[in-house]
Amino acid sequence: MSGPVAVTRATVVEVGPRDGLQNESVHLDPATRAAFVDALAAAGLPVIEVAAFVSPRWVPQMADAAEVVRRLTPRPGIRYTALVPNLQGLADALDAGVREVAIFAAASETFSQRNINSDIARSLATYAEVVRRAHDAGARVRAYLSTAFGCPYEGPVPIERVVDISERLALMGVFQTAISDTIGIAHPGQVWELVGALVARMPVESLALHFHDTRGTALANVLAGLQCGVTTFDSSAGGLGGCPYAPGAAGNLATEDLIYMLDGLGVATGVDLHAVVAASRLIESKIGHPLPSRYLQAQR
Amino acid sequence: MSGPVAVTRATVVEVGPRDGLQNESVHLDPATRAAFVDALAAAGLPVIEVAAFVSPRWVPQMADAAEVVRRLTPRPGIRYTALVPNLQGLADALDAGVREVAIFAAASETFSQRNINSDIARSLATYAEVVRRAHDAGARVRAYLSTAFGCPYEGPVPIERVVDISERLALMGVFQTAISDTIGIAHPGQVWELVGALVARMPVESLALHFHDTRGTALANVLAGLQCGVTTFDSSAGGLGGCPYAPGAAGNLATEDLIYMLDGLGVATGVDLHAVVAASRLIESKIGHPLPSRYLQAQR
Repeated sequence: MSGPVAVTRATVVEVGPRDGLQNESVHLDPATRAAFVDALAAAGLPVIEVAAFVSPRWVPQMADAAEVVRRLTPRPGIRYTALVPNLQGLADALDAGVREVAIFAAASETFSQRNINSDIARSLATYAEVVRRAHDAGARVRAYLSTAFGCPYEGPVPIERVVDISERLALMGVFQTAISDTIGIAHPGQVWELVGALVARMPVESLALHFHDTRGTALANVLAGLQCGVTTFDSSAGGLGGCPYAPGAAGNLATEDLIYMLDGLGVATGVDLHAVVAASRLIESKIGHPLPSRYLQAQR
Repeated sequence: MSGPVAVTRATVVEVGPRDGLQNESVHLDPATRAAFVDALAAAGLPVIEVAAFVSPRWVPQMADAAEVVRRLTPRPGIRYTALVPNLQGLADALDAGVREVAIFAAASETFSQRNINSDIARSLATYAEVVRRAHDAGARVRAYLSTAFGCPYEGPVPIERVVDISERLALMGVFQTAISDTIGIAHPGQVWELVGALVARMPVESLALHFHDTRGTALANVLAGLQCGVTTFDSSAGGLGGCPYAPGAAGNLATEDLIYMLDGLGVATGVDLHAVVAASRLIESKIGHPLPSRYLQAQR
């Protein structure tokens, strides 16, 4: 390996069962979703976001979150996480036995209003309380910071705002924030600039990168992230999830595509690419359309 | 822009009308192909490979190459190029008024045999004669070096062989060789390694990079190429072309995806992204299936 990537080990956070399925139009039963999680765990994915403890009125795809958790077969060493939007979601997740939760903040005021029906300040106040109670219960908290590279409503998002909110999340006790390109518009120049600004203020280990491949740049952005020293990347098996803003377009970076590149770069992940493909095939047969992962499509 | 890309200007070589259409199953008439070329020229693409002067028995998609050239409306400053496999093809291309041709060499012996029915040494002897006669006629010659990052039959291809053949092509008078990832398996680590070895022996301007997006890595590979100082990249409007080795999979890097990233990085190309989309829509309506470009799909 002769290239400017010093990272030799990375952690892949699998978000297919949550961020992926949440953006698909079919509603899968808990048994199917738990089997998907088990297949991903068998592939060696070290962190799997398995569910969202949200109201089924708002996100019917995520109904019966506790049942998904109950039905999966935990493997030692794997972190099973769940999204919680508020204190009720946290209570339900803790009741179900979840010991790591994720909260969902936004860097754009308009996106925050439309997506979680709250302004940024109020959402952060709620999350501070979520973190406090999670810690009291012995659970830890990760965060997503959405629209960090741009907003579908507001356009460009100031870097200072992303840095400021990331710092506030860290100060309230969040152990890691996934800097998220919610609409898939980021390019590597933005990654260097934004991650550069972030690591000037907080440890690189407290950052993850969450890219969508809507415009094909996700892996180039991962490469830029690796060059900044980032070692945690979110992805979704098969690219499950699509893009809610452009029907038919790609959404989440596909786990297969990410692992293929990391394998090539000699960045160890412990993930078995062929077993990820098997997990994607399993879920693809249930959702009724081909998944967009380039690597997966090349296997046909 | 705060990132390790020093390149501020790049040349995009549009290969859709040749490498793209050649790998589609529909056979389009010369008027349609010429209209596609004109739409690409209107988008500001500075180099367009418009046809292949090959036997229609072997590549029916490329039949009537001279007619395509005759029907297009040349714009000043744009280089219209054509693929020629041999002396007959060169003669036909020159007769049609083409003043820049491309030859197609391989870095893998098995691929050379199966793809152009000749061993590497014999193909290079033919190409030396093609280059001599092209120069005599006042035309210049570009080359593709296929399977430079790996072969579908042989697997890994030694870097020394790629460097050796690239040098031989340069010595015979080829002005630029497109180092080609024919089956879309390259990762950025290979790009740094191979391009590093090449630029130790020849000027970076004599190299282009030709990636396929079969496993999603094409733009990450372009980024690595830019970091090596490469300034010429091949792409195909809409990702036209697919992958002959995996039906349904992506083939050529899509021009839209490439331009989107280069625009973001502040690398000037003179290409109008929206006008490329218009050209892709034109040809998409003729070939009967959605084109795989991520950027294009996000525009629906």
